[in-house]
Amino acid sequence: MNRTVRIAAALALAAAAGIFLWNTMCAGAAQNVRIIKHDEQKAAPVSPDNFTGAAASRGFFPAKEIGVSTGEVTFPAGARTAWHTHPRGQMLIITSGRGLVRQWGEAPVEMNEGDAVWIPANVKHWHGAAPDSSMSHIAMAPLDEEGRSSTWMEKTSGADYPGK
Amino acid sequence: MNRTVRIAAALALAAAAGIFLWNTMCAGAAQNVRIIKHDEQKAAPVSPDNFTGAAASRGFFPAKEIGVSTGEVTFPAGARTAWHTHPRGQMLIITSGRGLVRQWGEAPVEMNEGDAVWIPANVKHWHGAAPDSSMSHIAMAPLDEEGRSSTWMEKTSGADYPGK
Repeated sequence: MNRTVRIAAALALAAAAGIFLWNTMCAGAAQNVRIIKHDEQKAAPVSPDNFTGAAASRGFFPAKEIGVSTGEVTFPAGARTAWHTHPRGQMLIITSGRGLVRQWGEAPVEMNEGDAVWIPANVKHWHGAAPDSSMSHIAMAPLDEEGRSSTWMEKTSGADYPGK
Repeated sequence: MNRTVRIAAALALAAAAGIFLWNTMCAGAAQNVRIIKHDEQKAAPVSPDNFTGAAASRGFFPAKEIGVSTGEVTFPAGARTAWHTHPRGQMLIITSGRGLVRQWGEAPVEMNEGDAVWIPANVKHWHGAAPDSSMSHIAMAPLDEEGRSSTWMEKTSGADYPGK
């Protein structure tokens, strides 16, 4: 092989590798069915700014990639979110235990395994475990046009949470 | 009471009733946290045009009201959807059993309890139970600007589904 042929071969190889990598990393990510196995979903502690108690969140797919913030959140007994709103609303599906959801100005409402909850857009509320039971829920909140799914507010006070 | 007072009273009562009904049925529906208890979620058979086998769907909130089609679908062993696509993609969370998802042109992939699956927009696929196990999943698919969450295509042929 002379030098020109070697350079052309190297360039062709680099181009092929580039196309392969682009397909795998970019086009592939956008176009293929993807699975995150249960044991690959890492639980991470939630921000103490937005929660009371040691809740943990298990994320599914990146919100910006799929247009919806999704995950499973587990609250030990007594743990709950701060007051907050969702610009496009949020659906909860209770997957275990017993919890509470409270809309601003209303009484807390009990949620049990299998219940589905809809929090409309811009309704101020908190949700979490009951004082005497843990609770887990799947949550899904569509992103707004600025890519946000939640607006966080003040933490719950003693009067906001039953028995505290 | 003279006639004018009676008419005015009747009109005032009708207006109050109208405002009450509007608040209850429209503003209330849009502005309040809502719960559908597990035992109020009715399972309904799916359309035989779009499924093979006796799958059943348990809906949560009306898709047009929350902007996302959501529900839990239960497939007995061997049951599966027809080929279809979702204009804004779909996320599945397997809640029990073992199932399969197959993208057009690819091999079937196994899904187990707790797995999260993302089907990107406009990717042709089917999903359902394994040949020898039932499977249930929660599904959520954002609606497109025309209010659609799925485009249904041909049913799976023998070659599409393993062991058939």
